[in-house]
Amino acid sequence: MAPSHQTPEIRKDTVNNRLVILSPARSKRPSDFKSKSNPNPSSQSNTCPFCAGNEDQCAPEIFRLPEHSTHDWKVRCIENLYPALSRDVDVEGEGDVSGSGVVTSGFGFHDVIIETPEHEVKLLDLDKDGVKDVLLAFKKRILQLSIVDAIQYVQVFKNHGASAGASLSHSHSQILALPVIPTTVSTRLDSMKEYHNQTGRCILCDIKTDQLLIDETSHFISIAPFASTYAFETWIVPRYHSSHYHELDEDKAIDLGGLLKLTLQKLSVQLNDPPYNLMIHTSPVKVTPAELPYTHWYIQIVPQLSTIGGFEMGTGCYINPVFPEDAAKILREVEVPNKE
Amino acid sequence: MAPSHQTPEIRKDTVNNRLVILSPARSKRPSDFKSKSNPNPSSQSNTCPFCAGNEDQCAPEIFRLPEHSTHDWKVRCIENLYPALSRDVDVEGEGDVSGSGVVTSGFGFHDVIIETPEHEVKLLDLDKDGVKDVLLAFKKRILQLSIVDAIQYVQVFKNHGASAGASLSHSHSQILALPVIPTTVSTRLDSMKEYHNQTGRCILCDIKTDQLLIDETSHFISIAPFASTYAFETWIVPRYHSSHYHELDEDKAIDLGGLLKLTLQKLSVQLNDPPYNLMIHTSPVKVTPAELPYTHWYIQIVPQLSTIGGFEMGTGCYINPVFPEDAAKILREVEVPNKE
Repeated sequence: MAPSHQTPEIRKDTVNNRLVILSPARSKRPSDFKSKSNPNPSSQSNTCPFCAGNEDQCAPEIFRLPEHSTHDWKVRCIENLYPALSRDVDVEGEGDVSGSGVVTSGFGFHDVIIETPEHEVKLLDLDKDGVKDVLLAFKKRILQLSIVDAIQYVQVFKNHGASAGASLSHSHSQILALPVIPTTVSTRLDSMKEYHNQTGRCILCDIKTDQLLIDETSHFISIAPFASTYAFETWIVPRYHSSHYHELDEDKAIDLGGLLKLTLQKLSVQLNDPPYNLMIHTSPVKVTPAELPYTHWYIQIVPQLSTIGGFEMGTGCYINPVFPEDAAKILREVEVPNKE
Repeated sequence: MAPSHQTPEIRKDTVNNRLVILSPARSKRPSDFKSKSNPNPSSQSNTCPFCAGNEDQCAPEIFRLPEHSTHDWKVRCIENLYPALSRDVDVEGEGDVSGSGVVTSGFGFHDVIIETPEHEVKLLDLDKDGVKDVLLAFKKRILQLSIVDAIQYVQVFKNHGASAGASLSHSHSQILALPVIPTTVSTRLDSMKEYHNQTGRCILCDIKTDQLLIDETSHFISIAPFASTYAFETWIVPRYHSSHYHELDEDKAIDLGGLLKLTLQKLSVQLNDPPYNLMIHTSPVKVTPAELPYTHWYIQIVPQLSTIGGFEMGTGCYINPVFPEDAAKILREVEVPNKE
């Protein structure tokens, strides 16, 4: 399909206060580097610590679903054997990011959610009930981490494929609990608050879908955001106002499971099983929903189709060759094998 | 060498208002993905548009050094054949990033600096006088772009290697002139201004080197920044106060050329010719140096040794497995073949 937009445009993501250059011409560049063969061949399951039967090769288990099952688990939450933050150091500096220098010791939690006991099964291969179990495992772990005194923010994320940052191919997500509120999160909250101050409304409750809608369910929509940072970037946004992901109940988790599965299937069919990153953008854990009428959680899914270079690193402004209106139209029309 | 730091730490880059997690344990992760073979084999010079003799395959030339030479150019500044921004669209919206939605049409300039006529010569292979020519070509083009009414900021950057975003292997840099001030630049300026307001001094004139110094020349220092975002990230900072890169004079350009060559040589020897990004962080072009006592330009060089994942994308907080004190010690001691 020929893109409907041909001249570049600079847009602003008002949720994240970020600029993007939409520039179709960039997709036509030739390259004299050999294209990466990207099959990402993975290990056999007999050497994979995340497979059923190899539980003793992992760091300690935190919980499993179904809970207390001795066999046949569906989802496991375990400690990360190579944690970015340590649960064994003292909290120092109280996470004050207003000053300079050392903010705090690296206290925090870094856990793994193993999404399936089977090595070759991906998140999109699970049925919607299986995806729901993963989503509720995120919720359960966030709630556990939220009550730790020093923890301010919990980032749930998934890296699929080596070039998206995964080091093991067995389907899993990660949860990092931080003693600080990261600057990107503060920027997002400030930006959403400003919109609320100006309009009295929540920016994501107000989001215009028009040509950007991909799919919708009872409780969620999937969209190509107006100022997509990456080609085929997709957001899944609750249609109801909710500041914290961990407010998700079982009914909504089933609904979300179906839409997440469909979205991942569509991206996989359209883009040939691309590496991707998935992030849950929620609110700091120590403030209550009532205190945050202006924030609204959402899931961001980013297929990794291009490389970040010095321009993006220097300016924070990304160059996206695909207009989101075009991406949304393509993804609306993709047929998936077993649409539930 | 065993790293001197073993427990993680969260630090703040006060220049850029950015957090980093320094976490040595992360470097020990195993991976079941096959390691990338990264020779990046490049095309033959007879098909390379940047080689001497193939000038007619390029977009129009803007200037060459030495100027007006018909043969034997050393550096060429040309238009990018696949520009991210277009010099042919009208400026609309006046680049006001305070509102929402479309900020402006994609007006701007996207140029290429070909650093050498020879296909196999890299920037670090040039002698310091050759590097100086490249640095002065940046200056000349920035000055030309600065007088275009709508242009607010000029980003100079270099991507070396396919995984750092380069699409052609012939040594070159790029210059993007924007009708807006990117949000990352605004954040840096705000952060530097806050330091100046609090102390009356410039944050980079005040920078503490201590264990972080790598090398120094008459006019410049190279350092591992205290809150390095990436392993072996290196900054080259003028020892004199200067808000704008384009204030660089010929004497200082020769001095900088020598230190840049040395820095690239050291990174190449230590890290086995890694892909890297180089960014010049300067000030908006429409404000005069006298108006900006608090900003100070510098060069950031980032070897691309790891992959960015969902955590970094979600939080803006990077996980760096190498403490900058360790990186600085290693780089201080690296011997390079022909230290001038």
